[in-house]
Amino acid sequence: MSVTEQAVRAREAARILAGTPRAAKDAGLQAMADALAKAETAVLDANALDVARAGNNGTSASLIDRLRLTPDRIAGMVQGLRDLAGLPDPVGDVVRGWTNANGVQVRQVRVPFGVVGIIYEARPNVTADAGGICLKSGNAALLRGSSSAAESNTAIVEALRAGLAASDLPTDAVQLIPGPREVTAELMAARGLVDVLIPRGGAGLIDAVVRNSQVPVIETGVGNCHLFVDASADHDTALAILLNAKTQRPSVCNAVETLLVHADSADAFLPAALAALADAGVTVHGDDRTAAYGEVVPATETDFTDEYLSLDIAVAVVDDLDGALAHIRRYSTGHSETIITESQRSAQRFTDEVDAAAVLVNASSRFVDGGEFGFGAEIGISTQKLHARGPMGLPEMTSTKYVVVGSGQVR
Amino acid sequence: MSVTEQAVRAREAARILAGTPRAAKDAGLQAMADALAKAETAVLDANALDVARAGNNGTSASLIDRLRLTPDRIAGMVQGLRDLAGLPDPVGDVVRGWTNANGVQVRQVRVPFGVVGIIYEARPNVTADAGGICLKSGNAALLRGSSSAAESNTAIVEALRAGLAASDLPTDAVQLIPGPREVTAELMAARGLVDVLIPRGGAGLIDAVVRNSQVPVIETGVGNCHLFVDASADHDTALAILLNAKTQRPSVCNAVETLLVHADSADAFLPAALAALADAGVTVHGDDRTAAYGEVVPATETDFTDEYLSLDIAVAVVDDLDGALAHIRRYSTGHSETIITESQRSAQRFTDEVDAAAVLVNASSRFVDGGEFGFGAEIGISTQKLHARGPMGLPEMTSTKYVVVGSGQVR
Repeated sequence: MSVTEQAVRAREAARILAGTPRAAKDAGLQAMADALAKAETAVLDANALDVARAGNNGTSASLIDRLRLTPDRIAGMVQGLRDLAGLPDPVGDVVRGWTNANGVQVRQVRVPFGVVGIIYEARPNVTADAGGICLKSGNAALLRGSSSAAESNTAIVEALRAGLAASDLPTDAVQLIPGPREVTAELMAARGLVDVLIPRGGAGLIDAVVRNSQVPVIETGVGNCHLFVDASADHDTALAILLNAKTQRPSVCNAVETLLVHADSADAFLPAALAALADAGVTVHGDDRTAAYGEVVPATETDFTDEYLSLDIAVAVVDDLDGALAHIRRYSTGHSETIITESQRSAQRFTDEVDAAAVLVNASSRFVDGGEFGFGAEIGISTQKLHARGPMGLPEMTSTKYVVVGSGQVR
Repeated sequence: MSVTEQAVRAREAARILAGTPRAAKDAGLQAMADALAKAETAVLDANALDVARAGNNGTSASLIDRLRLTPDRIAGMVQGLRDLAGLPDPVGDVVRGWTNANGVQVRQVRVPFGVVGIIYEARPNVTADAGGICLKSGNAALLRGSSSAAESNTAIVEALRAGLAASDLPTDAVQLIPGPREVTAELMAARGLVDVLIPRGGAGLIDAVVRNSQVPVIETGVGNCHLFVDASADHDTALAILLNAKTQRPSVCNAVETLLVHADSADAFLPAALAALADAGVTVHGDDRTAAYGEVVPATETDFTDEYLSLDIAVAVVDDLDGALAHIRRYSTGHSETIITESQRSAQRFTDEVDAAAVLVNASSRFVDGGEFGFGAEIGISTQKLHARGPMGLPEMTSTKYVVVGSGQVR
């Protein structure tokens, strides 16, 4: 079946889902969870094939770790589906409404997008997460996973579709898109059939989708995040947040990648900070001014432009707040940017002037997350300005329509 | 200056505008209005050159009418800028906010997009409208008008920039993009410099921008709008709304283009409707079943697929509500779709099942308009599902950011 044929089936499924009440969708999510739990052995067997092939191909250990499923990870996927059933349904929410002077009533109501395409890399748990989030928000999901996880994804989607069938929901509400690289191009060309594409993965994947898609895209997840230690910063606070934001989970998009230190804080803060980073196993790539305070790897331009997603950090000393703002303006990917300061004026300028999905004062950027924001589910963190910016929960997976009711009014 | 250089200047202007309070922006709008009023003669002279060239090129009378400026039309543009100054500023609005259990405070705040590109066709009044709306919402505007209005647009932008200069706002907040067709491609490639592109014009222009742009696009304005007269419709109501939605201003996107009549209403409604349409000067393109009720031009497929934007209408008889829903699903551009019915069940199904920016019951689709919705200003009517759908006012010209404030919290 071609991608276009799959998309046509998805549209028909979406038409039915749009009119499916919450109770039926929640029952479907529970049935999907039941079916996935029942398919544990099949999914693990399929995953073993993917892992073995990845090993033969010389795939890196960290990528294989992301690819590998365990009974615990499957249990997490099952629980994720059950948790979705407990969340409020955004569809049907009245965003606003009013009555015109002529008596015409206007309501703006949340509706599903329709068909959502997700293009993602190795982690097979995304298959269940994204399928569940789409179903809960009334959208049909076209899942384009990576070939490295093909066997795992096939087994997971088979289970999800068995759950849909068991609860009388259209099975084509969740479809995996198989096939070679070219089918991704077909998906990106399916304007009119697919309502939105959400790429999840590295900068290369996201950039390719944004450049080539004729379907509207929501960019997610590239986070070259900065932490600025102001002149007035409390240095204990700064150190605690630096270590948390860098080391608590270095592979995620809201981890800090660059530390900027106000020149007035450098003498007191940097020696201790460099020592603590070294103790935590973090490699420091420092500029010339930083090198005066400890042993560092000399930083090059790419240290400031790229995400490490590892236990590495770029460090630079800046003259003042303006220097920090200019550095962030130049290198930020617009994800999460943090200032540590005791100055109300600095905090205000930083939050006003930094152009990012999230700006933080005296808090770890690790809080910029759908779970931490209390959204219950998250399809990703949008770093674009259209539609949704920052963590995307269920309401961000919907559009709206205006319902206008009159009694014969004309202009 | 290249488009890229203009976009870099626009970004710098946008950075300043993002921090400019409402009072200063409103003073700027008034100064722009003053300057435009003062430039009336220069603008009319420039417009006369455009109109003369269009006449020499054999441009159609209707296009020349849209191109032509008069003292009245200039006064309308001036008043439009003054009206914008009186509207609330969406920037800085707190959309929502909460405090996490750990004391971290989160606020979602409206911020400007940054740099907005508008690509539009002949009407030079869009130049002042779009420039004003962008300024009010804190965005820098890159205006790419059509070459047919080049002299008029240049004179208008010169006046707007004089107003900006007089009020100490960055003049590069409003820039016209001159040059041949190729520069539009450069604008569509300016991802990272331009935050959003809004094409305003015919289906061909919008389609070309959506297909070729790497900058996110908001689609506007193509409206192949249907009016369905249900079995239970009040025929007087149906006729009044039909005539209003078709003839009050046939050239606009919320005018009705196709009439669908329930077979059970055809005998009683169609003879009178066809006669009334003929009296109003409307040419009816009817399907076979419609032809039984009066003289019609036989309808072909394009009568159902395309917008007329003229005193023409396609008419078809359908078996029932399902037939109407299927026809609309096939041909709708997702703008505004109307049912005339006395049946609560039909109204509910129609509003639930039709996938469009606006769905109307017993009211004219001409109400789907920023002015009628009370928005005060409108940049266009979005027919896409991402970001904004339906009439776009000032809040739809903004993004948001999360401001997260803590006192040292870590995960």
